[in-house]
Amino acid sequence: MRLSIMTFMRFVVLVLVGLVVVQAVEAADRDKLLSEPGVYGTFASFSLDADWGKQNQALRIAQLTVLKGVVEQHREKMAIDVYLLRGLSDHADLLFRVHATELRETQQFLLDLQGSLFGKHLTTAGVMHGLTKKANYVPGMPDSLKAELKIPSDPGSKPYVIVIPIRKDADWWSLSQEQRAAMMQEHTEAALPYGKTVKRKLYHATGLDDLDFITYFETSRLEDFQSLILALEKVKEFRHNRRFGHPTLLGTVKSLDEIIETLAQ
Amino acid sequence: MRLSIMTFMRFVVLVLVGLVVVQAVEAADRDKLLSEPGVYGTFASFSLDADWGKQNQALRIAQLTVLKGVVEQHREKMAIDVYLLRGLSDHADLLFRVHATELRETQQFLLDLQGSLFGKHLTTAGVMHGLTKKANYVPGMPDSLKAELKIPSDPGSKPYVIVIPIRKDADWWSLSQEQRAAMMQEHTEAALPYGKTVKRKLYHATGLDDLDFITYFETSRLEDFQSLILALEKVKEFRHNRRFGHPTLLGTVKSLDEIIETLAQ
Amino acid sequence: MRLSIMTFMRFVVLVLVGLVVVQAVEAADRDKLLSEPGVYGTFASFSLDADWGKQNQALRIAQLTVLKGVVEQHREKMAIDVYLLRGLSDHADLLFRVHATELRETQQFLLDLQGSLFGKHLTTAGVMHGLTKKANYVPGMPDSLKAELKIPSDPGSKPYVIVIPIRKDADWWSLSQEQRAAMMQEHTEAALPYGKTVKRKLYHATGLDDLDFITYFETSRLEDFQSLILALEKVKEFRHNRRFGHPTLLGTVKSLDEIIETLAQ
Amino acid sequence: MRLSIMTFMRFVVLVLVGLVVVQAVEAADRDKLLSEPGVYGTFASFSLDADWGKQNQALRIAQLTVLKGVVEQHREKMAIDVYLLRGLSDHADLLFRVHATELRETQQFLLDLQGSLFGKHLTTAGVMHGLTKKANYVPGMPDSLKAELKIPSDPGSKPYVIVIPIRKDADWWSLSQEQRAAMMQEHTEAALPYGKTVKRKLYHATGLDDLDFITYFETSRLEDFQSLILALEKVKEFRHNRRFGHPTLLGTVKSLDEIIETLAQ
Amino acid sequence: MRLSIMTFMRFVVLVLVGLVVVQAVEAADRDKLLSEPGVYGTFASFSLDADWGKQNQALRIAQLTVLKGVVEQHREKMAIDVYLLRGLSDHADLLFRVHATELRETQQFLLDLQGSLFGKHLTTAGVMHGLTKKANYVPGMPDSLKAELKIPSDPGSKPYVIVIPIRKDADWWSLSQEQRAAMMQEHTEAALPYGKTVKRKLYHATGLDDLDFITYFETSRLEDFQSLILALEKVKEFRHNRRFGHPTLLGTVKSLDEIIETLAQ
Repeated sequence: MRLSIMTFMRFVVLVLVGLVVVQAVEAADRDKLLSEPGVYGTFASFSLDADWGKQNQALRIAQLTVLKGVVEQHREKMAIDVYLLRGLSDHADLLFRVHATELRETQQFLLDLQGSLFGKHLTTAGVMHGLTKKANYVPGMPDSLKAELKIPSDPGSKPYVIVIPIRKDADWWSLSQEQRAAMMQEHTEAALPYGKTVKRKLYHATGLDDLDFITYFETSRLEDFQSLILALEKVKEFRHNRRFGHPTLLGTVKSLDEIIETLAQ
Repeated sequence: MRLSIMTFMRFVVLVLVGLVVVQAVEAADRDKLLSEPGVYGTFASFSLDADWGKQNQALRIAQLTVLKGVVEQHREKMAIDVYLLRGLSDHADLLFRVHATELRETQQFLLDLQGSLFGKHLTTAGVMHGLTKKANYVPGMPDSLKAELKIPSDPGSKPYVIVIPIRKDADWWSLSQEQRAAMMQEHTEAALPYGKTVKRKLYHATGLDDLDFITYFETSRLEDFQSLILALEKVKEFRHNRRFGHPTLLGTVKSLDEIIETLAQ
Repeated sequence: MRLSIMTFMRFVVLVLVGLVVVQAVEAADRDKLLSEPGVYGTFASFSLDADWGKQNQALRIAQLTVLKGVVEQHREKMAIDVYLLRGLSDHADLLFRVHATELRETQQFLLDLQGSLFGKHLTTAGVMHGLTKKANYVPGMPDSLKAELKIPSDPGSKPYVIVIPIRKDADWWSLSQEQRAAMMQEHTEAALPYGKTVKRKLYHATGLDDLDFITYFETSRLEDFQSLILALEKVKEFRHNRRFGHPTLLGTVKSLDEIIETLAQ
Repeated sequence: MRLSIMTFMRFVVLVLVGLVVVQAVEAADRDKLLSEPGVYGTFASFSLDADWGKQNQALRIAQLTVLKGVVEQHREKMAIDVYLLRGLSDHADLLFRVHATELRETQQFLLDLQGSLFGKHLTTAGVMHGLTKKANYVPGMPDSLKAELKIPSDPGSKPYVIVIPIRKDADWWSLSQEQRAAMMQEHTEAALPYGKTVKRKLYHATGLDDLDFITYFETSRLEDFQSLILALEKVKEFRHNRRFGHPTLLGTVKSLDEIIETLAQ
Repeated sequence: MRLSIMTFMRFVVLVLVGLVVVQAVEAADRDKLLSEPGVYGTFASFSLDADWGKQNQALRIAQLTVLKGVVEQHREKMAIDVYLLRGLSDHADLLFRVHATELRETQQFLLDLQGSLFGKHLTTAGVMHGLTKKANYVPGMPDSLKAELKIPSDPGSKPYVIVIPIRKDADWWSLSQEQRAAMMQEHTEAALPYGKTVKRKLYHATGLDDLDFITYFETSRLEDFQSLILALEKVKEFRHNRRFGHPTLLGTVKSLDEIIETLAQ
């Protein structure tokens, strides 16, 4: 019985929210933004204020349709992903990952989001930016290793997301390029066995915030992800992390409609 | 006189709250979840907001019945323990320990909890996750020591709970497996005399949050627990803790009905 | 003129508050709790919320009578001291020091306090616990020193209270018992000249919170207290404090009636 | 359609706000303030409170006209720049950079700003002060390097602003003047390739706040800015930064009218 | 025109506030309190709450007359100075410096202040205490240096105030008295050139809060003050500061009437 009501409610929410977006949107070239170098990735996390949950459902649905409108409109120009942190992370409730070629455009999206009826219930928990770069293979790295690195992770849904911000220590940057490359090769080899079940993406953050790197992970097997991090903690390069996490963001990958449905309940 | 009124009130609360849960629930296999490896343990602590205590008792009881409903429903799939931190810890008022085979299910429970009428009065104080693993006995550990470790703690109620999050330093992870094992044997031997009166459980947290371990203790003798921690602080392994506590959570073990009764007063 | 009005007000407050407590209470054996080992000392500090001062005086007096009732009732089982921090410490407004043989009883007192009409205006600033232990004289400590240590501080009112939480570093605990004892003898000798004007009490906190010790001082001569701390900072043992203060709590010793009178103004 | 409405709105806002400032203002000699030594630069960042966005637009426009009035009035005496941080920095929403010959005048501006109808919605996020000084060329620095340093950055709009506060360690200050100069020459040479696309300005903060330097950057090419910071992290001088960022402020350069227009939406 | 209104307003405020204090007060011997050893100096900083500015001016003036009354009354017993931090420091809006022979009296003043109608709008930002001591000249310090130290700073108004809290490291206290004295002589000589334009006063804080010293500066030339701090950062003693500032308080010296006038606007 309880389930039938929930199913009906889900239907109502999706219909109401679906009605709003009538114009056809031409999506940004999401694949390019997510794979090419020279793209800015922004991780903006938000908490819902105490008033959010105290509103009646009709009001919440009205505000969520605004959220959908804002996201859809900006998706014409950039790639926007949403994640549910609530329940798994004490840092924030929602996480947006935005890929754009100019941070000004990302700023305009976040301004529109925060200025919207829905955004008035959001409190900014954190904003981090990084730039994607071409993989900088270590000179002398065996071709077999390079080939293995290019094998994509197994297809299929990867419901968990983990974002770990990293700050290197001053010693790291004073090492020679060769010393850093040697350590990175050790790091890469330690990570290799987990490439199939844990998808990774790296962002270079130096100067854009108080970080040097943002590491992004998706997996359906958190146990493998934990083994990967344990393996990375044992290589020399790890000793040059002044900050690793703090916060570690853990959440679940959701479509915008799933987020809206969850928040409408 | 005062006591009789309290006894009556207790009766009223329990009857009211008891009425709500009419359907029979089939509990998750709690024993398995609490003893097997590969289970995720989540420690979610919450503070009650300032409005909670300002509501009249009827309203509070209505909201507590919702709490009971949410917990009972999810107990079909996972093991949920509740603890009262208020008065003993300045970090939070309530602690939930959830054991589940998938963190997605734990997230759904916490979403339902926070989205409920009762949950609107909760502010998240902290969320920590760890994974249970098979005891990794040190190679060459004497069989007598292994046998002693398997003796369960004395039966009987253990009213106090302590949760201590731990983060190891980078040096720890760069030690060889043998070096870490030798230190852990010294650690284990130091802890042994307290096994009868202090129950322990270990969770591996690396990567899931900003910790490496979560250690959970139950005892009826806080003096013994203090002696245990003092003994552990004297072994070499302790020098590799970058974080030990911060916060240390101290509270009392309660049934859901006892928590409800306390909060209804 | 102003003074006469204040005197009258004081009279009114005391009469009103005094009326409430009609039943005779049999106090816990306060002397035993304050002098024996194996007793738990809890330091709970609270801030008054912004609404407190905005209420009219009649309402405040009504709430303060509740405070008096809650404290008197629990004094049957435990020793409860109150201190005024406001104006001297930015950490909190009020400090309760509770001595009990079981922390569960302390928790019940603090639950009743926070659940009372007065308690709804309290925000918890900090809770620290420690256990009293038998003085652990250094082996080989001269009998003359032991004798001097047993001389109680000068009688007479000591209006100032200072509470300093301490956390030792990992090196401290890895020293041998003899090394620690030698350092403690040096510490003790440095403190000796101030024994007459500065009363001290030590609580062992390891494991119960993020501290190793809580040191409690009472004095009428803050200059002597400052000289005592300066003397202690110069001995070797001081170098093993990872945390000393943070916060240092400074306030004045008050009777419950004095606190009530101050807050009623 | 949406764009036409926004264009109209923009027009309305600018007309309304424009009407207010009727008196002709004689601007402070902005060029001198921005180029000469002995000028105090203040960086004051603010967050908008939750009520700001909940007001209707008419009210917001009325308050923004007050903002315009306050800034224009003080621009008679000092140089005031505004930046939009919201969306790019989690530290604050707005940043004011004020150049004045006396900090008392800057204080008066900020008092008037915070005391205004608009200012009641501002929460101070941070205030930092620095003093501009004559470039202190390293003795023996080649004239060619000095000449290159004097080449101004490429003209044209530089939409991005980055402000990085810096605190040196105690070792830095205990080095001899020659040692510091040698390290600064290495720093200067590393920065040189980025002089065309990244504009820099340095403020000496020691004693005026908890910093030693405030570094200000403008660029249209964030990638170049990131390369500049990476180059600076690799020179020896970087090892003497006890604090670098925390917070790093990232935003966009805006005219006062553009800020008003954005906030009026 | 604007100025005439402000002048009139200023007149109104001063008349209204002036009327309140009819009784003649006999001021505490301010000169003695500010120059003698054995006096407690308290630095209490406060922020004004968001409601303060939202009240109409009549209400604010009424509350400011209460502030004047409370300060005047306590000035019979102690020396009370007020400073405006708002706009120059992000730590707080107002700073009170109180000199008294007993901290109990300072506490009573701050209790009366916070309990007053004006005080209900104050949030405590920080409270620090220190004790004045006789200058402890280094044995063997040349008489010429001692003489120079006794020359008072140039007369004339010094509008800027800076307060820097200091905590020494454990190494400092474990040095011999001679070693510390030698370092202090170097410190004193470095400071000497700035004695004419920067007035200094030292408070010993050990044990009264989490500091060892509070250093207080007044100047009309912030550039000289900055040079003084740079000179002090270069002597060996500076390496023994575990904390220097955090917060550094920067503000302007104001009479009580000037503060009232500013807050009444």
